[in-house]
Amino acid sequence: MADLELQPKKAKKSAKAKNAESEALLFALAENRVAIEGVEPEIDAGRFAVKRIVGEPLTVSADIFCDGHDKIDAALIYGPAEVDPSQWSEVKFQFVENDRWQATVSFDEPGPYRYSIVAWRDLYASWRDEAKKKRDAGKLTDLELIEARDLIKKAADSGRGSKQDQRALAKLVERLEKLAEKGDQDGQYVLMESEEATLILQAAGHRTHLSRYPIDVPVWVDRERAAFSAWYELFPRSQSGDVNRHGTFDDVIARLPDIQEMGFDVLYFPPIHPIGSTNKKGKNNSLTPEPTDPGSPYAIGSKDGGHLAIHPELGSFDDFHRLIAEAKKHGLEIALDIALNASPDHPWIKEHPEWFDWRPDGTIKYAENPPKRYEDIVNFHFYRGALPSLWYAMRDMFLHWMEHGVRIFRIDNPHTKAYPFWEWVIGEARKVDPGVIFLAEAFTRPKVMKRLAKVGYNQSYSYFTWRNEKWELQEYLTELTTEECAEYMRPNFFVNTPDINPIYLQTSGRPGFRSRLALAASLGGNYGVYSGFELCEFLPIPGKEEYLNSEKYEIRAFDWHAEGNIRDDIAFFNRLRNDEAAMKDFRSLAFFNFWNDQVLYYGKRTKDLSSYLLFMVNLDPHHDQGGHFEVPLWEFGLPDDGTIHATDMASGNSLAWTGKIQHWWLNPQDRPYAVFKLTR
Amino acid sequence: MADLELQPKKAKKSAKAKNAESEALLFALAENRVAIEGVEPEIDAGRFAVKRIVGEPLTVSADIFCDGHDKIDAALIYGPAEVDPSQWSEVKFQFVENDRWQATVSFDEPGPYRYSIVAWRDLYASWRDEAKKKRDAGKLTDLELIEARDLIKKAADSGRGSKQDQRALAKLVERLEKLAEKGDQDGQYVLMESEEATLILQAAGHRTHLSRYPIDVPVWVDRERAAFSAWYELFPRSQSGDVNRHGTFDDVIARLPDIQEMGFDVLYFPPIHPIGSTNKKGKNNSLTPEPTDPGSPYAIGSKDGGHLAIHPELGSFDDFHRLIAEAKKHGLEIALDIALNASPDHPWIKEHPEWFDWRPDGTIKYAENPPKRYEDIVNFHFYRGALPSLWYAMRDMFLHWMEHGVRIFRIDNPHTKAYPFWEWVIGEARKVDPGVIFLAEAFTRPKVMKRLAKVGYNQSYSYFTWRNEKWELQEYLTELTTEECAEYMRPNFFVNTPDINPIYLQTSGRPGFRSRLALAASLGGNYGVYSGFELCEFLPIPGKEEYLNSEKYEIRAFDWHAEGNIRDDIAFFNRLRNDEAAMKDFRSLAFFNFWNDQVLYYGKRTKDLSSYLLFMVNLDPHHDQGGHFEVPLWEFGLPDDGTIHATDMASGNSLAWTGKIQHWWLNPQDRPYAVFKLTR
Repeated sequence: MADLELQPKKAKKSAKAKNAESEALLFALAENRVAIEGVEPEIDAGRFAVKRIVGEPLTVSADIFCDGHDKIDAALIYGPAEVDPSQWSEVKFQFVENDRWQATVSFDEPGPYRYSIVAWRDLYASWRDEAKKKRDAGKLTDLELIEARDLIKKAADSGRGSKQDQRALAKLVERLEKLAEKGDQDGQYVLMESEEATLILQAAGHRTHLSRYPIDVPVWVDRERAAFSAWYELFPRSQSGDVNRHGTFDDVIARLPDIQEMGFDVLYFPPIHPIGSTNKKGKNNSLTPEPTDPGSPYAIGSKDGGHLAIHPELGSFDDFHRLIAEAKKHGLEIALDIALNASPDHPWIKEHPEWFDWRPDGTIKYAENPPKRYEDIVNFHFYRGALPSLWYAMRDMFLHWMEHGVRIFRIDNPHTKAYPFWEWVIGEARKVDPGVIFLAEAFTRPKVMKRLAKVGYNQSYSYFTWRNEKWELQEYLTELTTEECAEYMRPNFFVNTPDINPIYLQTSGRPGFRSRLALAASLGGNYGVYSGFELCEFLPIPGKEEYLNSEKYEIRAFDWHAEGNIRDDIAFFNRLRNDEAAMKDFRSLAFFNFWNDQVLYYGKRTKDLSSYLLFMVNLDPHHDQGGHFEVPLWEFGLPDDGTIHATDMASGNSLAWTGKIQHWWLNPQDRPYAVFKLTR
Repeated sequence: MADLELQPKKAKKSAKAKNAESEALLFALAENRVAIEGVEPEIDAGRFAVKRIVGEPLTVSADIFCDGHDKIDAALIYGPAEVDPSQWSEVKFQFVENDRWQATVSFDEPGPYRYSIVAWRDLYASWRDEAKKKRDAGKLTDLELIEARDLIKKAADSGRGSKQDQRALAKLVERLEKLAEKGDQDGQYVLMESEEATLILQAAGHRTHLSRYPIDVPVWVDRERAAFSAWYELFPRSQSGDVNRHGTFDDVIARLPDIQEMGFDVLYFPPIHPIGSTNKKGKNNSLTPEPTDPGSPYAIGSKDGGHLAIHPELGSFDDFHRLIAEAKKHGLEIALDIALNASPDHPWIKEHPEWFDWRPDGTIKYAENPPKRYEDIVNFHFYRGALPSLWYAMRDMFLHWMEHGVRIFRIDNPHTKAYPFWEWVIGEARKVDPGVIFLAEAFTRPKVMKRLAKVGYNQSYSYFTWRNEKWELQEYLTELTTEECAEYMRPNFFVNTPDINPIYLQTSGRPGFRSRLALAASLGGNYGVYSGFELCEFLPIPGKEEYLNSEKYEIRAFDWHAEGNIRDDIAFFNRLRNDEAAMKDFRSLAFFNFWNDQVLYYGKRTKDLSSYLLFMVNLDPHHDQGGHFEVPLWEFGLPDDGTIHATDMASGNSLAWTGKIQHWWLNPQDRPYAVFKLTR
């Protein structure tokens, strides 16, 4: 679109010689008269994508202003990343305050999008503003009316807007000219300042000094499961119910109704590939295995194949396909654990020696953290001879499992592989299926975890597993839900994992399992449970944060309905997650006052308050805890002495709270948590 | 430099067809294995320059980290903007904590610079770290030594470092090989982990996976006066001492000793151009002037010329040159007020009608803020027909005054002219003299004021003039000295201006003038006084923030040594500013506790504490104010009951304060401020 304000005349030669570079800069700068800055959300100046799920609002804020006193207007422009910006949609910005503007959009399909901002001087709005002041002061003259007619004619010349808009504009010009011929000042003015004229000018008027934000900010849109999921992890080989019989995919199929009953939606397995025998680990990570020990599933690769194969004792690809189909019938998606390392027996070692780090003695460097060694595992090298062939092979490996029906990958230790590799390979997988989900199992330094989320991971393991105190839970959740990382990092709150038997749970007894569940399921958009948790399994290797007789090294069998299980609590929270819209927005969290350091108290809500939940969790598994708390009456526009209706969601009891300060008591043996739904 | 880790082999054709775009992305991403992010300071992703003065430290912070456990290292690279980055200097980053690194540089000459960051994996440091752990565990073998020798040979091959470094490296290889021949494991290890070897490898070793921050961050370096200046404003025409005689530049020269005595370093004049007669304003902005009224100096342009000329009654260019030379002898630089608007008599109106906004009736739109009109002034149009010719003319106007010896411009109302114009024209002026200084007289919305500083203004008027309460002074100064704007905006604290007769001073009497002076001169890196302030002039137009009988519309005469003047206070503070290094760093400010809301209490200091000043200012001009205050003993490493020496800088008295809590009292009639210099 030609900017009528940017039509240079040839200048007389100035006293100083001009140079081309200086003149080019002059015009480049002049093109953006309206300042657009402070754009949020935007990650590292557009280097990485802001994340949203389908249908989730994206509110863009920016400082937009121009020199002088003229009125301005602005629009958010946005569209699929592959579409040329000239074809994007637009939505008008609204002025907020202090030169800050906002606009909100959402996206219907997963995939890559971009947005940017245009802003312009709205000379017609400026005219209206000035003309009104002059008229109020009795100083409006024919001159101002002529100027307005000129602006409207210029709008007609600019050719903006639809044909319908242009017709309306032409008609407006015609009507004004007739009024002008009759000398009807009042008639002209009334029509010029009418809403009708204003809307026509907005739709078809010239955008004077149209300026554009230079960055097309990337937005990655996921399907809902990327931000809202309840994971259940199990070792397929432990599902036979008999420690002497290696479990199969069919054994897992038999367990599906049981898992569905608890209400999970993702069923996740540690690696299912063939397991190596060289330096195989025995029970409890010993270096002296029994011949019958199955080895660690992380020692990937044997004569039966590597990352592309299934461990034969689990079943065939046909069995796997059947499992995926059956799981789907039970509301469950399968997530695979992908660990990018190899047993010394992995076929790729012979096929691709260039992918490994060979030592001068002709051996491969074992995975190690000196002086510790992981003798059953070697690492890939992602550079030198492995670049790009390994990258392609890894991509093809992901695509292979996607072809076999897997849409969720949990990646083991991604922080020990190059970030550029992840950025590239996740991008490649998304080209095939924008709904593919990658969960980063990185328990490491905060900035590294954030970087992995930036380069593309849809979900991230988190420090939740070690946050037990009220102050640290509040601090951590406030960071996750309100700081910049909330725009791109979606934590998954695992209560335990095969590698982490939290100290808290080792000493808390059943009440601690119930309160940790309550926290994970209500605070986390994504949360996860490693099987055994529902049985309050806690036996550690003494003094360590590890499970005794870990399933990583042996086949186990459990009575999944053993007494004292907390399956009902799990089912309760998963039902709540699915029934209450408030649960689906990780960022709708607010902490409120409960005057007891052992009780965490918080709310989640939809914007319209139709789903408004309050949670209280007793963090002390050994004692009753209670106290006064604040009912957020103000959020419902109620006075401090107002009355609100609360439903105790666990018991079904109905309550009426009158007054902002109320009292509650949590008995850890009875139920260490409470959930209330507020309604006016 | 070739990265030895980035030498691809041709991959076997993978199962999926590759495409060129995907492969190009792969290599582009792979090139930056080390993450470099969170770089500070950096304004709008490098769109605008960070500002420093000559010799001022620039500390750059960044999050720098890599995948895995290898050691990394990083360097800040920097140099003049016009020099190719490959020729820049470098200084090593130091690790701080939590993946944060820092490096500090400074610049010797004014002008444009840039910096960026490189980071790499330091495999030799990783080797040393691992080898030490293995050796401590008794597990170091020949293998590790061979690997170290390979790393060192690879370093020699990479050709980095000076010839001297390379020779040292070659010698190191030779020595190690001799030790290896002898089978001397210990000897090799001792040499390999020696500081000598480490330094050689750092200087000449291969920088594995050398990664580069993509932005070359611009830094603008000013001469000191841009950040540290004391301004004195006067109307030259009022310097004759006789209201019936138009003052001249020679009258100003006669006043220089008087101004030097007060210790100012910038002498600033409202516009000195010929003044138009059409619609000339009379005394007190009246529309009915007497024939003898001189008119407003902002109504620029008459038959005698426009922005390039001098008002004939002030003198000639020769007189002006003489004034500049004399001022210099008195430690004063001349600052000119440039107002980009015109009287209806400005010669450019006829010469360049395309630079003005003509109305349908053939008149030019007056400057107005409806329904108010400024009948003696019309505005320039910076676009359409004025683009680029007006821009060049304005540039040449600035260059014209620079040729006549002016290096400081105070720009009237820059926020009503296009920001791109300022960015361009300031850049053009700096090409001729990087020491030229522009002060933005924009009293407007905060983001607009910041934008003007971003586009290049060296100094900015501020809200100081209206900040009177303790809390608002603390809040505003904290923003200015600690938030991002401190990297690019340098406020100038004017206590008054010809347009602003602050309400506070209208009612405060002499004590208020002294306390406002104390605040401006001690809080501001730059500060300014409009003449008459030293005489405690305060007569307003009743009910307005304007001076009665304003010099803008008439010639005034003053007795510059009238009783009750505060020249001694001004001289005291300007002496302090020049004598104490602490005063020169606007950002060295810290507020401390004084338990009285009428006393502002703060410190300024050099890093080495050799200049450490405490200020107390009584904000209440009508009553004594005192109370307990905290002596920042902790900054000197002293305990709360320690003793420190304080010199009362105004009286010269010596004090010894024992204990953190002390008491002081400020009598506004006696002296409403106190300044102490602390020494251990």
